Amino acid sequence: MADLLITSPANPRLKALVALRRRRTREETGTTLVEGHEELTLALASGVRPQTLFVCPELFSPAGHAGRQEIGRQEDLVAHARQLGAEVVRLNRTAFEKVAYREGPDGLLAVVPAVGRALSQLDTDDDALLLMAQGVEKPGNLGAMLRTADAAGVSAVVAADPVTDWGNPNVVRASKGTVFAVPVATATTVEALAWLSARQVRLVVTTPDTDRLYTEVDLTGAVAVAVGAEKHGADDTLLDAAAYRVRIPMHGKANSLNVAASAAIVLFEARRQRMAGAG
Amino acid sequence: MADLLITSPANPRLKALVALRRRRTREETGTTLVEGHEELTLALASGVRPQTLFVCPELFSPAGHAGRQEIGRQEDLVAHARQLGAEVVRLNRTAFEKVAYREGPDGLLAVVPAVGRALSQLDTDDDALLLMAQGVEKPGNLGAMLRTADAAGVSAVVAADPVTDWGNPNVVRASKGTVFAVPVATATTVEALAWLSARQVRLVVTTPDTDRLYTEVDLTGAVAVAVGAEKHGADDTLLDAAAYRVRIPMHGKANSLNVAASAAIVLFEARRQRMAGAG
Repeated sequence: MADLLITSPANPRLKALVALRRRRTREETGTTLVEGHEELTLALASGVRPQTLFVCPELFSPAGHAGRQEIGRQEDLVAHARQLGAEVVRLNRTAFEKVAYREGPDGLLAVVPAVGRALSQLDTDDDALLLMAQGVEKPGNLGAMLRTADAAGVSAVVAADPVTDWGNPNVVRASKGTVFAVPVATATTVEALAWLSARQVRLVVTTPDTDRLYTEVDLTGAVAVAVGAEKHGADDTLLDAAAYRVRIPMHGKANSLNVAASAAIVLFEARRQRMAGAG
Repeated sequence: MADLLITSPANPRLKALVALRRRRTREETGTTLVEGHEELTLALASGVRPQTLFVCPELFSPAGHAGRQEIGRQEDLVAHARQLGAEVVRLNRTAFEKVAYREGPDGLLAVVPAVGRALSQLDTDDDALLLMAQGVEKPGNLGAMLRTADAAGVSAVVAADPVTDWGNPNVVRASKGTVFAVPVATATTVEALAWLSARQVRLVVTTPDTDRLYTEVDLTGAVAVAVGAEKHGADDTLLDAAAYRVRIPMHGKANSLNVAASAAIVLFEARRQRMAGAG
């Protein structure tokens, strides 16, 4: 059976797709958007089953790039999504560019089930390394943290009192698809702290207001590394619950690091300590 | 003497300001743009003398924020720039919003001398920690690396064969002004390698194609940490010149880290080793 082809930018299905950029629509439909070969590949490898895959073969090969190989990779992904039960809808260039949210789209955009689970569905063990991000505002930062958290091999990332949702297309994009690979949950700070405490996970909170360096504490065993919001950092509730408050030393003229860079530095220090202990 | 007031968006001085978003105009005029209180504060603290400061007092206090205190801080900065010899030009809201390049502008935009110096003007010593970024494409990544490099206390950041220039407003912005605080230089890869070699700085290149972990090498003494371009990583010229090729372990499902996160992780490991050695 031939795939549906849409050429009119006014088509209602395209309007529904654009509506998914709004959080409310994502929550009402229980779905979100994933765009791009790299992100979709990781989503599929992580067990995501797309409901619909919108494709624009005209955009599969950006000019000047190793064209034929790239087209092959895009086509493989379309075949894979189809096998997983996705409806495939073809768009012409005009229609696709209306629904794409990134610059230089590669002709692949999928509607997938919403990510995120309840805290009770997260697994932890005695060696669990977790990341807790409190009140982070920028989707780009949340996405960047997910990418680093995936590389650091965390068991889960918990967004506490988040300003953005996990399905925000800019989170998905900045995460390079790792939002589908890493178990993620959303909770209030109080819920998250109770959950960590019940599982005897030690909470290590990064803050500039301490003398203790992040390299001076034991980050092995079950540990959650917590970072606060971009502007105001960790709040008192979070700071008061910390087993350790730690800071990253600032050797320069500015007085703060990007929150995603802070998370990367502390998570990889935890990983280094664990590998050193195992060696 | 009252400051010049511009209210027409068609004013030629505003056109000249917008033209500075183009690299060619920045190079021709030897100037660049800095926008925002945080960035400008760091620039002034780092010795930058603005030529012109465009201000829009109507925008000094974003709605809902601790207004009066914020206005005071903005006014202090204007006074400081004036003391340093800057011409102050007032714009009304319409005019300012035409020249601002960020969303939610705070009413401060300066024209400052171009940043960047020759390699020969950079200082190195026996303990110098440097960052070399080869072919990095995205201004946001270059800016994020500067911010981390500042925090890690590097002696300098060298952009080798860069796609962007240090004066790119998005570099300045993502760097939060640290592009003015950290000594920066631009060179070809070959020039940069010769310069490092002549100063006996060990080159440590991050690449996925090695078994050696970044935590397994000695990062004390004079060391340059090198990262490659977003898509293709370090090139053969850079890899061949490395004293050590190191990788950051990937424990997750994705196979690469953001280049700025990679730089953060390795620079702070170098800093950790130096502090451990001193302790």
